[in-house]
Amino acid sequence: MEPADAARLGPERVVRALPPRLLLLPLLPLLLGRGLRAAASASSSGAAAEDSSAMEELATEKEAEESHRQDSVSLLTFILLLTLTILTIWLFKHRRVRFLHETGLAMIYGLIVGVILRYGTTATSGHDKSLSCTQEDRAFSTLLVNVSGKFFEYTLKGEISPGKVNSVEQNDMLRKVTFDPEVFFNILLPPIIFHAGYSLKKRHFFRNLGSILAYAFLGTAVSCFIIGNLMYGVVKLMKIVGQLSDKFYYTDCLFFGAVISATDPVTVLAIFNELHADVDLYALLFGESVLNDAVAIVLSSSIVAYQPAGLNTHAFDAAAFFKSVGIFLGIFSGSFTMGAVTGVVTALVTKFTKLHCFPLLETALFFLMSWSTFLLAEACGFTGVVAVLFCGITQAHYTYNNLSVESRSRTKQLFEVLHFLAENFIFSYMGLALFTFQKHVFSPVFIIGAFVAIFLGRAAHIYPLSFFLNLGRRHKIGWNFQHMMMFSGLRGAMAFALAIRDTASYARQMMFTTTLLIVFFTVWIIGGGTTPMLSWLNIRVGVDPDQDPPPSNDSFQVLQGDGPDSARGNRTKQESAWLFRLWYSFDHNYLKPILTHSGPPLTTTLPAWCGLLARCLTSPQVYDNQEPLREEDSDFILTEGDLTLTYGDSTVTANGSSGSHTAPTSVEVSRRTKGSSEEVLERDLGMGDQKVSSRGTRLVFPLEDNA
Amino acid sequence: MEPADAARLGPERVVRALPPRLLLLPLLPLLLGRGLRAAASASSSGAAAEDSSAMEELATEKEAEESHRQDSVSLLTFILLLTLTILTIWLFKHRRVRFLHETGLAMIYGLIVGVILRYGTTATSGHDKSLSCTQEDRAFSTLLVNVSGKFFEYTLKGEISPGKVNSVEQNDMLRKVTFDPEVFFNILLPPIIFHAGYSLKKRHFFRNLGSILAYAFLGTAVSCFIIGNLMYGVVKLMKIVGQLSDKFYYTDCLFFGAVISATDPVTVLAIFNELHADVDLYALLFGESVLNDAVAIVLSSSIVAYQPAGLNTHAFDAAAFFKSVGIFLGIFSGSFTMGAVTGVVTALVTKFTKLHCFPLLETALFFLMSWSTFLLAEACGFTGVVAVLFCGITQAHYTYNNLSVESRSRTKQLFEVLHFLAENFIFSYMGLALFTFQKHVFSPVFIIGAFVAIFLGRAAHIYPLSFFLNLGRRHKIGWNFQHMMMFSGLRGAMAFALAIRDTASYARQMMFTTTLLIVFFTVWIIGGGTTPMLSWLNIRVGVDPDQDPPPSNDSFQVLQGDGPDSARGNRTKQESAWLFRLWYSFDHNYLKPILTHSGPPLTTTLPAWCGLLARCLTSPQVYDNQEPLREEDSDFILTEGDLTLTYGDSTVTANGSSGSHTAPTSVEVSRRTKGSSEEVLERDLGMGDQKVSSRGTRLVFPLEDNA
Repeated sequence: MEPADAARLGPERVVRALPPRLLLLPLLPLLLGRGLRAAASASSSGAAAEDSSAMEELATEKEAEESHRQDSVSLLTFILLLTLTILTIWLFKHRRVRFLHETGLAMIYGLIVGVILRYGTTATSGHDKSLSCTQEDRAFSTLLVNVSGKFFEYTLKGEISPGKVNSVEQNDMLRKVTFDPEVFFNILLPPIIFHAGYSLKKRHFFRNLGSILAYAFLGTAVSCFIIGNLMYGVVKLMKIVGQLSDKFYYTDCLFFGAVISATDPVTVLAIFNELHADVDLYALLFGESVLNDAVAIVLSSSIVAYQPAGLNTHAFDAAAFFKSVGIFLGIFSGSFTMGAVTGVVTALVTKFTKLHCFPLLETALFFLMSWSTFLLAEACGFTGVVAVLFCGITQAHYTYNNLSVESRSRTKQLFEVLHFLAENFIFSYMGLALFTFQKHVFSPVFIIGAFVAIFLGRAAHIYPLSFFLNLGRRHKIGWNFQHMMMFSGLRGAMAFALAIRDTASYARQMMFTTTLLIVFFTVWIIGGGTTPMLSWLNIRVGVDPDQDPPPSNDSFQVLQGDGPDSARGNRTKQESAWLFRLWYSFDHNYLKPILTHSGPPLTTTLPAWCGLLARCLTSPQVYDNQEPLREEDSDFILTEGDLTLTYGDSTVTANGSSGSHTAPTSVEVSRRTKGSSEEVLERDLGMGDQKVSSRGTRLVFPLEDNA
Repeated sequence: MEPADAARLGPERVVRALPPRLLLLPLLPLLLGRGLRAAASASSSGAAAEDSSAMEELATEKEAEESHRQDSVSLLTFILLLTLTILTIWLFKHRRVRFLHETGLAMIYGLIVGVILRYGTTATSGHDKSLSCTQEDRAFSTLLVNVSGKFFEYTLKGEISPGKVNSVEQNDMLRKVTFDPEVFFNILLPPIIFHAGYSLKKRHFFRNLGSILAYAFLGTAVSCFIIGNLMYGVVKLMKIVGQLSDKFYYTDCLFFGAVISATDPVTVLAIFNELHADVDLYALLFGESVLNDAVAIVLSSSIVAYQPAGLNTHAFDAAAFFKSVGIFLGIFSGSFTMGAVTGVVTALVTKFTKLHCFPLLETALFFLMSWSTFLLAEACGFTGVVAVLFCGITQAHYTYNNLSVESRSRTKQLFEVLHFLAENFIFSYMGLALFTFQKHVFSPVFIIGAFVAIFLGRAAHIYPLSFFLNLGRRHKIGWNFQHMMMFSGLRGAMAFALAIRDTASYARQMMFTTTLLIVFFTVWIIGGGTTPMLSWLNIRVGVDPDQDPPPSNDSFQVLQGDGPDSARGNRTKQESAWLFRLWYSFDHNYLKPILTHSGPPLTTTLPAWCGLLARCLTSPQVYDNQEPLREEDSDFILTEGDLTLTYGDSTVTANGSSGSHTAPTSVEVSRRTKGSSEEVLERDLGMGDQKVSSRGTRLVFPLEDNA
């Protein structure tokens, strides 16, 4: 029965048993595939004597078993792909080849396997049977079907666009290697995003927080709007020249703008890490990419939620627009709060229990709490991935300080492995999807337009924003940095996950195909061009993150004339925005002492009438050993006020205690806790003049000279 | 429409949309729940203007969203349960409370939450709509349903027994917290089992390999057979007194015997570990429990596969019986081969690449290869869980030696965390299932019978087998050890996973309920009674695994008279069975040198004509530094022949190099590589007489004295 016929039938609906080729197959049920087999075998072993339809049952059982095997094979394909990627990337690292990152390689292998699956496997014909029945006019989440007296339960997988019901390609293998798009969002992205948040604890991130927030929020919004409008122009053009075969609304264009605005400079950052490129640039790029992922997710769901009342649902409607803005703000702040709250709860739990005696329990708790953020946010209708990001940042900023040394390395390594596997999995899937995905809409005009649009969209926020930021920044973002940021606008896992999430309509399919090509192009070309670009733009490499400004620098020479102490105070003050200073001193004086074992005792920072509370909340360690406690990111962002304060409570030098960062990609360098009192500080200042001055000038990053 | 009516309809079949209350809900789709939401929202944003049924769509979308939220909430429930368990168990460990293990605690919390869910939540009425349609006489894996012109795809969940179609309890919450049973088998068990295999690398395991294999294979078979027969008697009795309301075949009884024969003395072993109880007893118990899990899985599927031809499918049929035996042997050896091969491949890869410079890559590779074992076995129709077990053992025995120090701790910690989470998850689920599972069949007679049967079944293999083993063993298994093994017959995760896998028929439901109660009882009572039992049976605690036999021992005194060298050789020879000696020398001379960086160079062990091959395969390290290389389990199982051999190639003392076993539960103690040549050995013998003699007598474990 043709779907056209079915549609004409009116109340007499069609129930069609077909191979699930049209909607993307969820991968996970493959792990559960034996359920059916077990049920089938149970019925055959249990009641087969009485049942005459044993043969038919056996056939069902065989089919289920076969399906389970195929599922295993397809997952195995991905695992072998990843294994191959790992081995090749080892070879590359071994030989110091830098033009291809592991993600790029994963895509290439994915492409190859995709080609083989597409053209090497024969199209198997499905068992396409139709049955018609009457049906109420809504879909239920579960169906119970009576087949020869046996009841089979079916669960709703999703809707299929009617036009696609018959565009059949009966290739089982292609279907098997196609994942449910929600796998990316709910299983693969969270570890990636959490890891990003958890490794944001770089002191340079906080030093550049203002600029990063500006790039992430304003930048993404500007980029989304510009790309959306440009693409709307392209779509109009396509309509005129007759290249458009289905609807493509303005909201679709804006959605594409949001999807493609999520940058993911994974290859650039890997090379930065390896070459020890400039740490401030690294912080800017990394921070921007992490936060704009969150912005892009929320932005895209706000755009989807834009549904004006009335018939003309694609015209502008002020009420709907403000509702969308409200949704954006609501989801974003809600997810942020969820993440932060879970992080704070974890910090409190790890602070007030002695869980650190049992690293296994501690690590498990940490993992569970971080996961619960995701679920909590999803349960409340917020976005789990965004919540996980902020949870990661909070965990790194507070909880990390309370963990035992072993748990620190355990948690880092655990999430590092998960992140590595998930990321390479996504990229190899992308390569595969180019050939195995069966609903591609290649539109050359749209694709070329999109490339131009993302270029212009990025240019339109990097340069103007940098200009405005430079007005306020003490350490200007030089032209070479701006060019490098412009260049590093790669698109990656997030854009892909957002685009594949919904490929039901023609417009979305075209977007998906275009996004895929943009990811390929940017990852390969930009990834490969990073090293030449770095040297062409004269960006310093081989920087020791602790000793970044080269001593032969002009501004350094000038500043060294001042006393190191005053230079330090002044520069820091000039550098930090008042808002940030406010936050920093609040964080340092109240939040850190409450949530961690570090910082000054609350008894000194809280007003006297809070004495009892302060004593309860302050960690006994602060009293036990009047030494500066663990802190890793405070020594570069001390303001003058803080300096005075810390003179009083002896945490001045505030070097981090050395966690055991054995992870090779981590640039953090162990620093020992020194100086524990004012005298020690004096000694420190006197003894290591070179050291202190270099620490002072670290704050004055000579960006101007490169411009 | 009642199912009875439906059955009478003949060709006019029934398609019924009902809340999925009858089959267990797969949990994982909850993670994918947003797929539907996205699809629904896409259709509403994309084509809503043209569609008049926008309201209905909105309802579907809302429903999907609501369902996704409920899924998140239910998973969150489990995570909070686990968090609570972790915090409480920390308190217990902190206060050195030993009567309750974390798994027991997880069950208690699960029970409490189960009671709340069962009696605290109101029964919500589902949307039970029926639609009838014609249908072919077989079930398809996918249905396409036309609802008001929209096509919805449904996938087959499984069969529902007709009698159960209307035994409705419309409680959404209970349904939500009920997992697909295959989750246990395909997601939660593999990390548990792999971890068990990966931590089997205890030298005492290999020392007792023969006995462990006997207990695991013969013991499980005997236990299964005895329990099956006893239960068949119980079932007959129930039939006579009218307690049985449905069919219960002999194969069902045997299946129950197989399911319940999988012991899991997790609480006993945890206490052994904590108190450092006797290492040989530990090895016997741990080894038995790990291997009998594998035996029980394969045994149960062989019993399910027993399907005699003809009508009377539950009578004895020799052909079917031998087919079942063949299936058992085939699946077991196939799974074993899969696991071993993947382990060997991983060992070769890690040996011949320098992957150990990049621990992240190495860990990821290790993880992927171990996972691929599972998939490979499933794809070939073998049992993934069993393959994973043997893969773990091989990885520990070979690959582990090739890993970098960091990867060793990374892999150990990774799998430790996964194992911990999975195990406690299963146990808390068990607690929950007692109240939320809706198909319990409590039969007091069957339950009491089962308790008696498992007691007799265990007694019937522990004591006779120990008697026969003692005939051959130099170090007898004393009465106190036999009693302790008898006592430690706990049932745990594996029995539960096997029992819940199929609860379609009345017999299986009764078995499931009984298994649940047996697990509860054994984990709580036996777990709590372990410490008293240990002292009552006079089993030594506080044993240093390297220095186990107390110097004040009789046999020790006698043997000390001999030269330490001869004592060592003789005792080892007497202890080890010839088969094992053969395997050991093959492993030591060929496999270890080929697969790892340790052992004697192949050039000395292989015949001369294999010279070239030997040079290729031998690790360069063996030539570079003519020192004994990493080995951790060889010093206790050297035979006289080995001793002579090793004199020649200078690996005599064969102390393990110290891996970094930072995991607190690991009892392995770092030992430094000493003596690298014959002279060093002499020095060693001369200098540390006490040390050497204690090492010599380590082989003579005075079990007789405790008897």
